Amino acid sequence: MQVVIIGSGNTATVLGKLLKENGFRISQVISRNIAYAEILANELSCPFGDLSSSINETADMYLIAVSDKFIHEVVNYIPKNNKLILHTAGSVSIKVLENVTNQFGVLYPLQSLRKEIANSPEIPFLIDGNDQEVVDKIKLIAQKISSKVAIANDDMRLKLHLTAVFVNNFTNHLYTMAADYCKKEQLEFDLLKPLIFETANRLKSVQPIDVQTGPAIRNDAYTIERHNQLLQNYPDLKEMYIYFTKQISSFYL
Amino acid sequence: MQVVIIGSGNTATVLGKLLKENGFRISQVISRNIAYAEILANELSCPFGDLSSSINETADMYLIAVSDKFIHEVVNYIPKNNKLILHTAGSVSIKVLENVTNQFGVLYPLQSLRKEIANSPEIPFLIDGNDQEVVDKIKLIAQKISSKVAIANDDMRLKLHLTAVFVNNFTNHLYTMAADYCKKEQLEFDLLKPLIFETANRLKSVQPIDVQTGPAIRNDAYTIERHNQLLQNYPDLKEMYIYFTKQISSFYL
Repeated sequence: MQVVIIGSGNTATVLGKLLKENGFRISQVISRNIAYAEILANELSCPFGDLSSSINETADMYLIAVSDKFIHEVVNYIPKNNKLILHTAGSVSIKVLENVTNQFGVLYPLQSLRKEIANSPEIPFLIDGNDQEVVDKIKLIAQKISSKVAIANDDMRLKLHLTAVFVNNFTNHLYTMAADYCKKEQLEFDLLKPLIFETANRLKSVQPIDVQTGPAIRNDAYTIERHNQLLQNYPDLKEMYIYFTKQISSFYL
Repeated sequence: MQVVIIGSGNTATVLGKLLKENGFRISQVISRNIAYAEILANELSCPFGDLSSSINETADMYLIAVSDKFIHEVVNYIPKNNKLILHTAGSVSIKVLENVTNQFGVLYPLQSLRKEIANSPEIPFLIDGNDQEVVDKIKLIAQKISSKVAIANDDMRLKLHLTAVFVNNFTNHLYTMAADYCKKEQLEFDLLKPLIFETANRLKSVQPIDVQTGPAIRNDAYTIERHNQLLQNYPDLKEMYIYFTKQISSFYL
């Protein structure tokens, strides 16, 4: 199966490599950023071009892996010969592809993909297609590159994208705030990493609601007060500490 | 080295087993909760008792692993013959032990310990002692059960305990909120677990501040608005979404 990759960022790079490793032939990389297109094309051993280049007409699949806001634009450059066209976005409707081909769908990686991280993590894919036959086709493709594939329509995909914001973006911000505090207080942030890993990894065997601990759930006013004193010079951290303490207390009331 | 374990909860259980596995002899388990004391003593193949029992006078070390608020009380039951006494609490001063022996210190596991989780995670230990000789002694003990040992006084230990609240308690609450939303919206929370693991595990190679993504840091008002619409029936989640979005935007201004 010949694939044209449109995009050259984290998603394009990680999925491009994953497809190639699993027997797909990448026939071209197309990207607005020609320098990035070249880097990815070199990794995938294929030709490359920008949006003004002629896009390969004989590919079996066109995989759009660009920023959400550019999807509308790049679809216009794809050859109109009714081949399979997929986008990879969590919060963009499948309908953005409906006027370009009669085989279209979504291959959304529910994962944080970063090209600089060598070991690709497990990637669950949420897929959708314009009809059952296309869904089945996309499912076979997804199953070649992942062991976790689920069908999800626009609404479900957007909702899971929203929860991903909580467990990835917001969680990472908590890590950032803690790292920032450690730096300013000359404490070694590395000492916290085993706890960070365990807090995530233990979800393999427990539900998060069953393992909540700490001063907030215990209503341990003494420890909460001492922690607040340590945050006197950190108004943002202090506000966040008070906010979570209140949220956790009321959640478990 | 003979050790009396005082306590029978998560910390007592995990540290008791770890000490035993690494050549220490557990000579007794003492706990207010005699039923739990018996369970742990059976696992460690040693006698047990509650606080009214006679505590072994010939042990080399007494390890206090009880809730913070009970440390003051249990120290009074330990035989006063100048043996090494350690507590395991992040936010309790070393001074709580100063009138009981001339060798005392802290062996604080900076980790979430749960007796029901079979595979013990990596545990960094923060240690302290009443003088250099005692610190050295505790360091040797800690190094037998962990490859990550750091010396930390009361102030540093309390500050790291505070950061642990951010990366463990608050993070786990975000997981809980996401799991709750998935349940109510009939979405599969399991699909989010690879993302949760990766968000933590990638810290092995990147700094959290360098990998922040999502609508908040991009100031992507359109996605933020759509996410907010999905949270109409979830006032707590919506409040938290707005709160983090504001915090992240202003942190990266």
